[in-house]
Amino acid sequence: MTLLVSDPEVSATLDAATTVAAMRQALLAAYQGRLVAPPRTAAPLAGGRLVLTAGQLVGQWYGYRSYDTFGHPEAEQLVVLHDAGTGAVRAVAVGEELGSRRTGGLGGVAVDALARPESATLGVIGCGGQAWTQVWATAAVRPLREVTVYSRSAARREAFAARIRAELGLGARAVDSARAAVRDRDVVVLATTSPTPVLTAADLAPGTHLNAVGFKQRGRAEFGSDLLDAAAVLVTDSPAQAGAYLPPMLAAEPPYAARLRDLGAVLAGAASGRTDADQLSVFCSVGLAGTEVFLLDHLVRTLAPAAAG
Amino acid sequence: MTLLVSDPEVSATLDAATTVAAMRQALLAAYQGRLVAPPRTAAPLAGGRLVLTAGQLVGQWYGYRSYDTFGHPEAEQLVVLHDAGTGAVRAVAVGEELGSRRTGGLGGVAVDALARPESATLGVIGCGGQAWTQVWATAAVRPLREVTVYSRSAARREAFAARIRAELGLGARAVDSARAAVRDRDVVVLATTSPTPVLTAADLAPGTHLNAVGFKQRGRAEFGSDLLDAAAVLVTDSPAQAGAYLPPMLAAEPPYAARLRDLGAVLAGAASGRTDADQLSVFCSVGLAGTEVFLLDHLVRTLAPAAAG
Repeated sequence: MTLLVSDPEVSATLDAATTVAAMRQALLAAYQGRLVAPPRTAAPLAGGRLVLTAGQLVGQWYGYRSYDTFGHPEAEQLVVLHDAGTGAVRAVAVGEELGSRRTGGLGGVAVDALARPESATLGVIGCGGQAWTQVWATAAVRPLREVTVYSRSAARREAFAARIRAELGLGARAVDSARAAVRDRDVVVLATTSPTPVLTAADLAPGTHLNAVGFKQRGRAEFGSDLLDAAAVLVTDSPAQAGAYLPPMLAAEPPYAARLRDLGAVLAGAASGRTDADQLSVFCSVGLAGTEVFLLDHLVRTLAPAAAG
Repeated sequence: MTLLVSDPEVSATLDAATTVAAMRQALLAAYQGRLVAPPRTAAPLAGGRLVLTAGQLVGQWYGYRSYDTFGHPEAEQLVVLHDAGTGAVRAVAVGEELGSRRTGGLGGVAVDALARPESATLGVIGCGGQAWTQVWATAAVRPLREVTVYSRSAARREAFAARIRAELGLGARAVDSARAAVRDRDVVVLATTSPTPVLTAADLAPGTHLNAVGFKQRGRAEFGSDLLDAAAVLVTDSPAQAGAYLPPMLAAEPPYAARLRDLGAVLAGAASGRTDADQLSVFCSVGLAGTEVFLLDHLVRTLAPAAAG
């Protein structure tokens, strides 16, 4: 029997700590070669494309996420989980929550691995769904005392800060500039739709860790190369995916490519992370493929441990 | 709300006449350019591939079928239907029935369009699921009096004939050679897994219509080029897909390619079908992409006409 999972079930089952723990397992599995995630593939249709990102935990499951580029505000994604032993479809998740939470979870792993242990302040630029799950996951890995929020819309940034106070129980306030949002912060999240830099490296305090979730390509990036020049630690969740962007991802081009490390390697102890409290560390989030299916497998085993056998 | 459709619901909702009628609409829509079906795309995994065939009825829906090549006997396919107006997932079908019935339905359209009107006898080589839906659909478009069945396993061909008698109420008997199964038949179905010819053109009576469902490529085909030489009418459900096979499909290579007609064009009256009762007509089934989603849309509107708007 196939389990149909919708957004409310994802929300009820995958809290931030659970999600971050699952994404840590996924990153390690990818680093060890057990999680197979080939480049995305797409089918062209009139007005948009259907995109498929596949994944496989060898011997356990295989599956994929599908989404499209038609740009419907209410568009729903699918995540499909096949049993590797039988080929049967164990579960299908329809909606946005699973994908949003896995991206947040990957960001949470990065903060946990790279931010200073005593980090307690978070600055966020952006107020969308991606910004939300970054805050949600960061709060699960660091005892946050205060969150500052900026986006261009005063109403939206105020609502976002109110949501942080209400749902996460954290001190949070909206501020009226990007620079004010990131000033003297231990952790910074960039999660905008901006194609041009929203901050400079000089805006950041020494020792900051930054998660970059929005555009990060040549000619279309929410930060400039000055941020990469300043970063002593440069990490991504998938060097292979980072290297496949067109136009190229800034951090995957010379001179940065040679310094770009795999978060899974950092977790495994095969690459170093932060070695000094004053270093700027930057995580370039690309959304390691296969992690949505990994998270759905985790969810299904939580919901129906007997059936998942 | 997404509707999850499983095989029993497909079986209960899509009878042969309904399925053939839907596939006729799909073939016409493809011919008229309203049904968009790009070439299949695939993601490589360890031990197999995930394959996606997308489809779109412009302005109404888009979606896809996914299947894999791991070779699990119980593997399940997915068919996904998105609403074109919102991007929401209206339905997901899990299993084999929808795909099997659409291939049968396409074969039924071909028989209806190309076989002599008075056709009453059917010969089948092959006893698998594909053979079954061809018989099922053919019985919906011609008043069959007798079906002869051959496959290598005596037990399987006897069981197949018994199933035809029981489920379709037709006279049916197993015979002990391929030649005996197709002798003096009005309609013939080839639905084997044989990589080498299972009959010759000389085995067929004048005026026969033949549906070829199994392998039909150069060096791997259940019939030889003698069948194509003898065929006065050569038709496929997708010339584009027929031309994309590797190794090439026999009927899509010279000298046959120039004669290979689009079944949709025949239905639209833009290409001729049979013009003489003594002609041999051959339908090379490739499984027009997008038709699984077309059939799922049809099913959803049958099951939930109000919700489908």
